[in-house]
Amino acid sequence: MHQFPAEWKQGLYEAVYRRRDMREFLPDAVSGEVVARILDAGHHGPSVGFMQPWNFLVVEDRALRQRIFDHVNEERLKAADAYEGDKRERYLSLKLEGILDAPLNVCVTCDTRRRDPAVLGRQTIRETDVYSTCCAIQNMWLAARAEGVGMGWVSILEPEALHRFLNIPAHILPVAYLCMGYVPSFPDKPGLERAGWETRDTLASKVFGNRWNDPAPEALAACIANSSATAPPITQPGGPGS
Amino acid sequence: MHQFPAEWKQGLYEAVYRRRDMREFLPDAVSGEVVARILDAGHHGPSVGFMQPWNFLVVEDRALRQRIFDHVNEERLKAADAYEGDKRERYLSLKLEGILDAPLNVCVTCDTRRRDPAVLGRQTIRETDVYSTCCAIQNMWLAARAEGVGMGWVSILEPEALHRFLNIPAHILPVAYLCMGYVPSFPDKPGLERAGWETRDTLASKVFGNRWNDPAPEALAACIANSSATAPPITQPGGPGS
Repeated sequence: MHQFPAEWKQGLYEAVYRRRDMREFLPDAVSGEVVARILDAGHHGPSVGFMQPWNFLVVEDRALRQRIFDHVNEERLKAADAYEGDKRERYLSLKLEGILDAPLNVCVTCDTRRRDPAVLGRQTIRETDVYSTCCAIQNMWLAARAEGVGMGWVSILEPEALHRFLNIPAHILPVAYLCMGYVPSFPDKPGLERAGWETRDTLASKVFGNRWNDPAPEALAACIANSSATAPPITQPGGPGS
Repeated sequence: MHQFPAEWKQGLYEAVYRRRDMREFLPDAVSGEVVARILDAGHHGPSVGFMQPWNFLVVEDRALRQRIFDHVNEERLKAADAYEGDKRERYLSLKLEGILDAPLNVCVTCDTRRRDPAVLGRQTIRETDVYSTCCAIQNMWLAARAEGVGMGWVSILEPEALHRFLNIPAHILPVAYLCMGYVPSFPDKPGLERAGWETRDTLASKVFGNRWNDPAPEALAACIANSSATAPPITQPGGPGS
């Protein structure tokens, strides 16, 4: 009932499993049509009380991006101090942004006051506006992947700096600063996994039944253990069009 | 380059545009295979520093769900006091949860300490762990839609109550409490839009260029104004399998 035909379903899962946080970009322009489709996917994210708290700032200006790049680079050197020796070297060798390489950046914001004071369903959890904005960002990420466009989320920056550089009002929260553009390739695995920085946890270690630390329901646990039930449905290594 | 074939691309966009926050559920069980695929889609969400901060508590126990239902009902009556007259009546008539009707509930949590102290890229924005968890939830929502499974996010509850009912440790944040199950139908529009509670903003009103309140880049603005560029790619009203 209501389930998608096989090719549509596969398209959704392929986007989920092939999406990557990209750091390397080609200079090729992304057309207005494609950018519009990616932003509209974001705009069709869920939002508590249908408050639609997001805005999208499409940052193309070169001088502006240089200023943001310089800020991120400073933060990056500061952050490196959290690591020692070999890990510090590896940290500094990781390419942490494509702010200047990508043809465009997008800052996604959350208006924490939109439709105040009485947004339906927001009385008990204020943060639902930010949660909604993040869901919108994931829609953009998946749409970008389907379009063959890479997206990278730059998290090493001070929200305060974005307020200043982009004239963002004080009550508006910049949630994400994204780089967007075509890429040489989409790697099979996340960059930090390839770099030996972290490994992917098993799904089994993430699922509980009813209460924290209780075993998952038996039938579900069996399906999770049986990798074929949850294996990425990627049947053509390298994928179509790659 | 790297873009998906047409049917895959359509599958992704159909999931984005057809996803709904569902409130009505059928009692039919959702198989372990399908639940495992939805959870695995969540587990393949992005996460800063690959910290994978999420856990999934699959809540089936009836007595436990009754306790959570009672709590939500109390919060709902309290929240209704934020409205007056006709809006209060309409608020109380909206069906706000499917906690008991749906065959299963899933609580998605965020471990704010996972892989501490030095998670890559998290020194400047602590909240990135929660942002990651929300992206994972959106993956689940889209995967559920592709599977024909409805999902509803219950936001009218106190996180403290979930800590208590589900034995969740103090440093773990319950981000979402979700109802999941098959549904009579997926409506064409969000419930609050159909109910006349809110309307959908235009994409054009959401997009700025470079700085807050600056006009969007011309080529992009033209594409956004041309609705055919961003219209939902839904070509069969009612959709396949509906």
